[in-house]
Amino acid sequence: MVLQTEFAQIKNNNLYIDDVKATDLAEKYGTPLYVMSEGHIRHQFNKLKTKMIDKYENTLPLFASKSFSCLAIYKVAKEYGVGIDCVSAGEISVALKAGFDPKKIYFHGNNKLPSEIEYALSNGVENLIIDNFHEIELVQEIAQKLNVVVNGVVRITPGVYAGGHDYIRVGAKDTKFGFSSHDNTYLKAIKKVIDAPNINFDGIHCHVGSQIEDVQAYVLAMNKFVDISYEIYDIFGIVINKLNAGGGFGIAYTEADKPLEFETVVDTIMEIITKGFEARGLKRPMVLVEPGRYCVGNAGITLYTVGSSKYIKDIRDYISVDGGMTDNIRSSLYAAKYDAIIANKAEMPTSHLVTVAGKNCESGDILIKDIMLQDSQPGDILAVFSTGAYHYSMSSNYNQLPKPAVVFTYEGKSREVIRRQTFDDLVYYDIDSTY
Amino acid sequence: MVLQTEFAQIKNNNLYIDDVKATDLAEKYGTPLYVMSEGHIRHQFNKLKTKMIDKYENTLPLFASKSFSCLAIYKVAKEYGVGIDCVSAGEISVALKAGFDPKKIYFHGNNKLPSEIEYALSNGVENLIIDNFHEIELVQEIAQKLNVVVNGVVRITPGVYAGGHDYIRVGAKDTKFGFSSHDNTYLKAIKKVIDAPNINFDGIHCHVGSQIEDVQAYVLAMNKFVDISYEIYDIFGIVINKLNAGGGFGIAYTEADKPLEFETVVDTIMEIITKGFEARGLKRPMVLVEPGRYCVGNAGITLYTVGSSKYIKDIRDYISVDGGMTDNIRSSLYAAKYDAIIANKAEMPTSHLVTVAGKNCESGDILIKDIMLQDSQPGDILAVFSTGAYHYSMSSNYNQLPKPAVVFTYEGKSREVIRRQTFDDLVYYDIDSTY
Repeated sequence: MVLQTEFAQIKNNNLYIDDVKATDLAEKYGTPLYVMSEGHIRHQFNKLKTKMIDKYENTLPLFASKSFSCLAIYKVAKEYGVGIDCVSAGEISVALKAGFDPKKIYFHGNNKLPSEIEYALSNGVENLIIDNFHEIELVQEIAQKLNVVVNGVVRITPGVYAGGHDYIRVGAKDTKFGFSSHDNTYLKAIKKVIDAPNINFDGIHCHVGSQIEDVQAYVLAMNKFVDISYEIYDIFGIVINKLNAGGGFGIAYTEADKPLEFETVVDTIMEIITKGFEARGLKRPMVLVEPGRYCVGNAGITLYTVGSSKYIKDIRDYISVDGGMTDNIRSSLYAAKYDAIIANKAEMPTSHLVTVAGKNCESGDILIKDIMLQDSQPGDILAVFSTGAYHYSMSSNYNQLPKPAVVFTYEGKSREVIRRQTFDDLVYYDIDSTY
Repeated sequence: MVLQTEFAQIKNNNLYIDDVKATDLAEKYGTPLYVMSEGHIRHQFNKLKTKMIDKYENTLPLFASKSFSCLAIYKVAKEYGVGIDCVSAGEISVALKAGFDPKKIYFHGNNKLPSEIEYALSNGVENLIIDNFHEIELVQEIAQKLNVVVNGVVRITPGVYAGGHDYIRVGAKDTKFGFSSHDNTYLKAIKKVIDAPNINFDGIHCHVGSQIEDVQAYVLAMNKFVDISYEIYDIFGIVINKLNAGGGFGIAYTEADKPLEFETVVDTIMEIITKGFEARGLKRPMVLVEPGRYCVGNAGITLYTVGSSKYIKDIRDYISVDGGMTDNIRSSLYAAKYDAIIANKAEMPTSHLVTVAGKNCESGDILIKDIMLQDSQPGDILAVFSTGAYHYSMSSNYNQLPKPAVVFTYEGKSREVIRRQTFDDLVYYDIDSTY
């Protein structure tokens, strides 16, 4: 078992997060509880700043906010000078409510709705990642109507596959995202963007995958994108302004994961891009990357209260907790693996092989299959690590379970950034209607 | 393609639901939109009434409300004299707000929290499905404190496996639910319930699986449960009051599914139970079943607006819609299959092999892989069938997509029973907090 963040510590048999005792958080805010170490989050955003923004001029890391979108995270992010990528008008709306600069918002998506494009453009968003031909027409039409010019970065599928579960694969040829590079589709798209009077063709984007553990994936993709950039120059006489290398920055969920360091990826792609453009006599474009999970994944620790248990002779021992697939769909959706400890028995031996079940009424609601844990009793607090990305953002009210609160911790203190839902919230959208 | 409900019709090239034109619903309420045929729902609840309650005395079908829980459905359900099963205090709270009789609520779950048990018992819920040893202690303690006596039906895993995706398998030996029957665990549990002064040992419960297409699963389980009932009589001298045969009543999602008729299952289990108890000289207990999907699954049709498309040479054609895994997690979670049509081109030939992608920023967000559809253009309305169960109830705000509205249709009219979320709703729970 590893804590997966230096901002968690074990002292006197107890787990602490940013020097706040886990059991105190559980008592104060209830369980299940999403705890996010603001210390860890700031440490990660600071890496984005120091290892990319400060180190290489004309670069911008974008926080991929689908991993964790709420007012509080955008307020922290903007302190570090990073941009964000948003995948819907809803995400943009939350970012704007948090005071995020619309000029630093990059709008993504395979099916941006007309209403979303209009919302974005009306609210000062100027950077779009252009995904498909229909979108070029829509953006042109709406930008013209609103009398604005937007920057369009064209998303190209590099045909490079890397990392993660099959569900989170992108970049391969068979994907709903972007324009294919295995024929001349991407060149037609770029031509169409160049010809659109209200879209400024601004560059190219690729996304190689998720949870990438091999830097070669970036090497291959960036070499290909340098070639594509020169091809664009060769055909259209345009030197691209922006090269967006996408996301895929992994984290460790368990000791089996060997994620790349952020700086390893950044240094690698900066060298390839810088040298590649230099060799071809072109000005190096602005370089962007899109880490999401990397910024917040290991910051998250979900606290649960242990409840019932079940010992099935010769088969399996279950312990159940007070959350489940409602607050963590990744276990069942991606067969994702996690580390965990009993937070109030953190220095006891991990002597029990158990399966941690959620409380949802569904056999598949298993949070962790087969983990060595401390001996646990009802009322003990289970801490599951690395739940900061794609947990709150994917949470549901299945089984009418209220969503947990989200609490940030920092330097010995805590604050609630998203409150726990109540039973009344479960019918907040219901209407007593008649025909 | 089949419509999967007789309450949907195709007229003049258009899909109608309860005689309401699908495109009119899309225009009036927006898309994506969960449309639920109240005609279909009433038809199904009426089957529960006529094929079970009216036909066999001392029986009670329970609507498994995790499939679709909201005020409106409980109000319809109660008109038919059925009970409901609830799997959380949240579900109970919604049912009670809808005016559902607490005496007809059966409380399920592998990890009922102390707070949930207290909530249920304080609000007049008297029937619990007892799942594990820890729960027996909790229920006894809380019932004693509240000075009430509750009915406890003991959930026993029959060791029979049937139907559905591996994730929705239950009843097998390796499950988080209930007491094992492959050793004497269930007898120890029954003894403990009998000895608990504030729990009235009321009977036994089994759940064989989900989406069961072979009546033999019920035959095996019920024969075993008749034997177990006699064993209970033999050992403890108690004739059980209730035998709950659980759920598993399937529906057709596509033409490949061959669900059992409700009456086939009911007639089969009633015959086995009646004859089995008669042969052993025991009074036949009250018989309960728990259909959920069966009541509401085929009633649901999700309407989407078609947006972008992508044609990847020699690989695949994608069309994208304005919803996705946020409103339908079953496609990615269970690899569930669906039928669909272009609602405003319903009589055009299904000449195009396409893959329907959702708009969530995730490669795995594919609603339907490889389906023959009518030629579609942006703005067309795609209708996906059989989305009434486990769709709204499992929906999320991933990508900060607002949840769709739910609309009921009936005899040519429509009404909104759950309103669409707004962008403001996306930050409704956010707190502007400081340390």
